[in-house]
Amino acid sequence: MDKTDPNSDVVKPIRDDLMSGAAELALRAITIFQAVLNGPAAASAPALKEKITETARALIDAQPAMAPIFHLSNTVLFAINKSTTVEAIKQDCQAALDKFEKTLCESASAIADEVFDLIPAGELIFAYSFSSTVVSALLNARAKGRYFRVACTEARPSMEGRKLASRLASGGIEVIHTFDNAMGLILPNCSTAFMGCDCVGRPGVVNKVGSWVLAVACRELGIPLYALSGTEKIVNDDRLFEFEKHERPPEEVWDFTTKGVRVLNHQFDLVPFNLLSGLVTERGILKEPDIEQYVSKLEVHEALKLQPATF
Amino acid sequence: MDKTDPNSDVVKPIRDDLMSGAAELALRAITIFQAVLNGPAAASAPALKEKITETARALIDAQPAMAPIFHLSNTVLFAINKSTTVEAIKQDCQAALDKFEKTLCESASAIADEVFDLIPAGELIFAYSFSSTVVSALLNARAKGRYFRVACTEARPSMEGRKLASRLASGGIEVIHTFDNAMGLILPNCSTAFMGCDCVGRPGVVNKVGSWVLAVACRELGIPLYALSGTEKIVNDDRLFEFEKHERPPEEVWDFTTKGVRVLNHQFDLVPFNLLSGLVTERGILKEPDIEQYVSKLEVHEALKLQPATF
Repeated sequence: MDKTDPNSDVVKPIRDDLMSGAAELALRAITIFQAVLNGPAAASAPALKEKITETARALIDAQPAMAPIFHLSNTVLFAINKSTTVEAIKQDCQAALDKFEKTLCESASAIADEVFDLIPAGELIFAYSFSSTVVSALLNARAKGRYFRVACTEARPSMEGRKLASRLASGGIEVIHTFDNAMGLILPNCSTAFMGCDCVGRPGVVNKVGSWVLAVACRELGIPLYALSGTEKIVNDDRLFEFEKHERPPEEVWDFTTKGVRVLNHQFDLVPFNLLSGLVTERGILKEPDIEQYVSKLEVHEALKLQPATF
Repeated sequence: MDKTDPNSDVVKPIRDDLMSGAAELALRAITIFQAVLNGPAAASAPALKEKITETARALIDAQPAMAPIFHLSNTVLFAINKSTTVEAIKQDCQAALDKFEKTLCESASAIADEVFDLIPAGELIFAYSFSSTVVSALLNARAKGRYFRVACTEARPSMEGRKLASRLASGGIEVIHTFDNAMGLILPNCSTAFMGCDCVGRPGVVNKVGSWVLAVACRELGIPLYALSGTEKIVNDDRLFEFEKHERPPEEVWDFTTKGVRVLNHQFDLVPFNLLSGLVTERGILKEPDIEQYVSKLEVHEALKLQPATF
């Protein structure tokens, strides 16, 4: 998809959002689908279907690592597959959006309850990057009377770790904050670590870049690391590696470079299951062998199937 | 020492220098001693000795992790120990400064020659933070006709990794640069990694914070990691841990924090020898058991001995 296509402007806020976690982005994508349902394309059923399909593809293309955006889009396209009138499309699409939003919220709440038991009272715990699932789990534990402190780092270059720090502090949790490379100084004082995730597949968990280094450091120090994720983030292997496509402009890292210096700005990395203590989902704590049963049930709408690479 | 003492202003450029490696800082400290020799304290022998001693302590206090500054100061104080006239002090101090500078330069040059054999032709190698020893070793290898590319990261918060990138690029070495937490994405493409170091002791190597995470990541990926260091960086155990004193203002990390967020800005961490492939010195590649013989020979001037902690 041509990113300069004016029709794709509708997803620009999603493409430019480097501060939100996967679940938050999916909630924002829901409002974009709603806008399409009420936009000019609703003049005829074929035009509306076409526009919804195009929006689905553009949203996925805007944030290829964010599994909930893929699943939301996939769910929407299946929901309107057999709808033949404008009214039916609107109704079926809205029902799918509502159901997806409900699932996201219920997952976050179930995960929060499970995380409560993983937070040792009185300890310092580590949390990486920004994840609304992690935030809601920690605030929920605090609200239920568990006392603990949280250490977190910036998550360069977009610094969404600062958003995490601020959000937790406003919720009454004491936060210790430092830069990413100082992880090794603060982790030895932490008893458990948590991260969100953007996408889960058989090879592991995709999340903000730096998660892999965190995971290796946690294993070296004997600190359990849990990834929190609704099962709506589980995808097929080919979709999982879409995160590798997501390169951001180098200027976001360094806006004044010398000739001969190439600046890389990749946003995600993959943490294999052997570096994780578990994936905390709304259906319990999953391990590597549990993922297969979810992957095998996945159905991908024809319009969203990835083309095999051609050489 | 009171850092607000106006007499300590002479070391301010050293205290505020977060971009230079240990050897570079020692060269700058030499010019500060030279300024003292030619300053108003040279009116009488006792006043000059007093001022030199005070400068030595202030320099060490300004950069407690930088072993060459300690050794330079220690060498200077021993050199003037028995000098009784202003002329003798000036002469003995200047001779010590000259000798120290010569040692630093000869070490860097000998290390550069050894590093040549550790750089595999045609490969991508990783270098962390800024170290003049690493820069001279890599430029020397390039000048001798070895072709390779270098990957490096920023080294937050002072970003001296950018200085490394620029310096190497100006020397004709192709550089790939990214942020620290993206280390895990670039390291799998690297065949060897190098770091400078600020201080070496029996427990390991002290260097810019992030070195520990780099070392753990290198071991996980099977990448050899060498620390480059003249033996003038070897110190006693108590001196080694002085780096823990060095906390910088939190505003250098985050200048607008929320209530409830405490920002830590520590600059150094310790890499134990078991995470290093070797310490490349002017006397060959040293391993952990080799350090003892250097430590056992160290003599510390009375004026620079650390006071045992009191409780």
